Amino acid sequence: MFNFKIISESKETKARAGVINTAHGVVETPVFMPVGTLASVKSLSPEELLDAGAQIILGNTYHLYLRPGCEVINLFSGLHRFMNWKGPILTDSGGFQVFSLAKLLKTSEEGVLFQSHIDGSSHLLTPEKTVEIQKCLGSDIIMCLDNCIAYPSDRDSAKDAARLTTSWSKRCKQSWENGAGNALFGIVQGGMFKDFRAESIDDLVNIGFSGYAIGGLSVGEPKEIMLDIADFTLPRLPDSKPKYVMGVGFPEDIVELVALGADMFDCVLPTRNARNGQLFTSYGTINICNSCFRTDTKPVEPKCECYTCRNYSKAYLRHLYMARELLGYRLNTIHNIHYYIGLMKNMRQAIIDGSFDAFKKDFYGMRC
Amino acid sequence: MFNFKIISESKETKARAGVINTAHGVVETPVFMPVGTLASVKSLSPEELLDAGAQIILGNTYHLYLRPGCEVINLFSGLHRFMNWKGPILTDSGGFQVFSLAKLLKTSEEGVLFQSHIDGSSHLLTPEKTVEIQKCLGSDIIMCLDNCIAYPSDRDSAKDAARLTTSWSKRCKQSWENGAGNALFGIVQGGMFKDFRAESIDDLVNIGFSGYAIGGLSVGEPKEIMLDIADFTLPRLPDSKPKYVMGVGFPEDIVELVALGADMFDCVLPTRNARNGQLFTSYGTINICNSCFRTDTKPVEPKCECYTCRNYSKAYLRHLYMARELLGYRLNTIHNIHYYIGLMKNMRQAIIDGSFDAFKKDFYGMRC
Repeated sequence: MFNFKIISESKETKARAGVINTAHGVVETPVFMPVGTLASVKSLSPEELLDAGAQIILGNTYHLYLRPGCEVINLFSGLHRFMNWKGPILTDSGGFQVFSLAKLLKTSEEGVLFQSHIDGSSHLLTPEKTVEIQKCLGSDIIMCLDNCIAYPSDRDSAKDAARLTTSWSKRCKQSWENGAGNALFGIVQGGMFKDFRAESIDDLVNIGFSGYAIGGLSVGEPKEIMLDIADFTLPRLPDSKPKYVMGVGFPEDIVELVALGADMFDCVLPTRNARNGQLFTSYGTINICNSCFRTDTKPVEPKCECYTCRNYSKAYLRHLYMARELLGYRLNTIHNIHYYIGLMKNMRQAIIDGSFDAFKKDFYGMRC
Repeated sequence: MFNFKIISESKETKARAGVINTAHGVVETPVFMPVGTLASVKSLSPEELLDAGAQIILGNTYHLYLRPGCEVINLFSGLHRFMNWKGPILTDSGGFQVFSLAKLLKTSEEGVLFQSHIDGSSHLLTPEKTVEIQKCLGSDIIMCLDNCIAYPSDRDSAKDAARLTTSWSKRCKQSWENGAGNALFGIVQGGMFKDFRAESIDDLVNIGFSGYAIGGLSVGEPKEIMLDIADFTLPRLPDSKPKYVMGVGFPEDIVELVALGADMFDCVLPTRNARNGQLFTSYGTINICNSCFRTDTKPVEPKCECYTCRNYSKAYLRHLYMARELLGYRLNTIHNIHYYIGLMKNMRQAIIDGSFDAFKKDFYGMRC
């Protein structure tokens, strides 16, 4: 059911264009996956996601396990029918949210014991449990439970976390093998230590996964370190499998990571920042609440073909934002998602056309 | 440009079906006008309003005058282009909001002096000023400034308010006559005193308007009194003109008022209550946060053809509502607006088919 094929590689960089086949359809890489935490990409309908060119979305296992819970989602045979999204879905393992959002009570070989950020109830998330939940969600791409650590961390913590991740990944693979047509991805850990990253890759490749993700980036480290670790890690992952850099990032980060060979991305930036009035454009970001937009009758980006830019002015978006009108959050989100997905499409086309270096030059040249 | 034609009248009741022509298109009556206070029917796009069958929307002069202000809307030659709504727009005069929302400083022959509910700034709203603002908004139907009073009120206050409304209405007519293809409606006042209502009607009909509205209802009086005053007032308005009952109401109220001869309605109930989780159905209202809907895989109303009912379950709507997801407010609003507009369409068809009494019987028969 699941497979990945590279259709073109950039000669000047490590960028590559590919196709992922899943049970719910095709994903063209490099791809950006909008984040649909609670069975909704905040403020958007599935039709608006399709209009923006979204081919796959991400669901958060931690959130969905707590609300509405598997009991409810099982009644719909998974997330797809529950939320009316017919395309592919990737779900994370919950590991990162336990680390960043819940109150972490105890990490052990068995799994992670945490308290819900909603009602304080205690839950044990094991490798087997996260696979079971993601199967219930009907996920097309299931992520292994990984052990995330803070930045900075000492060598011992990073080593322990990577080794625990390996052990959990083995158990995820065992649980998953009883499963259906969904893929299972392993997550490389190892902090900012290259030797542990290399070891983590070796371990995961020995277990064998349908794709590999780099976890533990964008956790507070300087951008140079993030790119340095990605530059070290990405080429060491099997080229025949999709390479996914989790939770990154700004357009510039994504462009650099695609050049380093990354295929898949997810990030809350385009959606969350839209709700805070920040809009992404070819020229850089603008904040729609700026008073200079009060009388600006032009769209956010005149050449943009999104629903928002085709129909509304910056003055209207600013008005909606200042008045806290719900439509404003949506129109901003539509634009930002369209921008991110458009960026991926343009990169993909440049890779296919053999002009990725020229694309990068243009991309940076236009930014203020 | 503006005209009104009755195409069918119910024999059993005073209900009538008609057509209003405006510069921005046709409105079939009886009609419900969704409220778009701040240049947005909260949470909906113009396309969603059209999908729900909306033919005309209402804008609030008071709100739009304060935010974004005529300076901004003038740059778009009115509300239509600013908010991307191509159909007819009716704007109220601001009188009711000054009465209900702002801090009213002084009512005089000249107009109303009030303090903005946003920043406390002082503004004088005169009959001339409200017509000028509504012309700037590009309104298809402009409402005269009226003097609203609280319920209960004594005879002297009601008498004074009705007489001031007459005086202001004359000045509105004078200001309006320099205007373009938009219509001007007068608003009947007189509190709950029939003699003053009759006097107010005589005064307004002498001045002459393109349509007549009943103001000062649904201000806290018992439902029987509201219907009694409407029953007294509606048949005394010129039958050749549209009759508009302002700010009413629940589905039952609207059905009763249509039977009494009302043609036009506006109310925040379907939109505001949607955002509070209350959904209107043929069987009565439900509150989507009720735990009985947690595992309910059926749509809100199986026979409903709205986008929400065609694609989503009550369990999903409840999940979105409990998680305060923005999409939930929208899906609820789509359903409620569709319900209200569907109700109007069904009544209109019943009037045309000569089966309005049967319609009423069915309408009440289905409600729990």
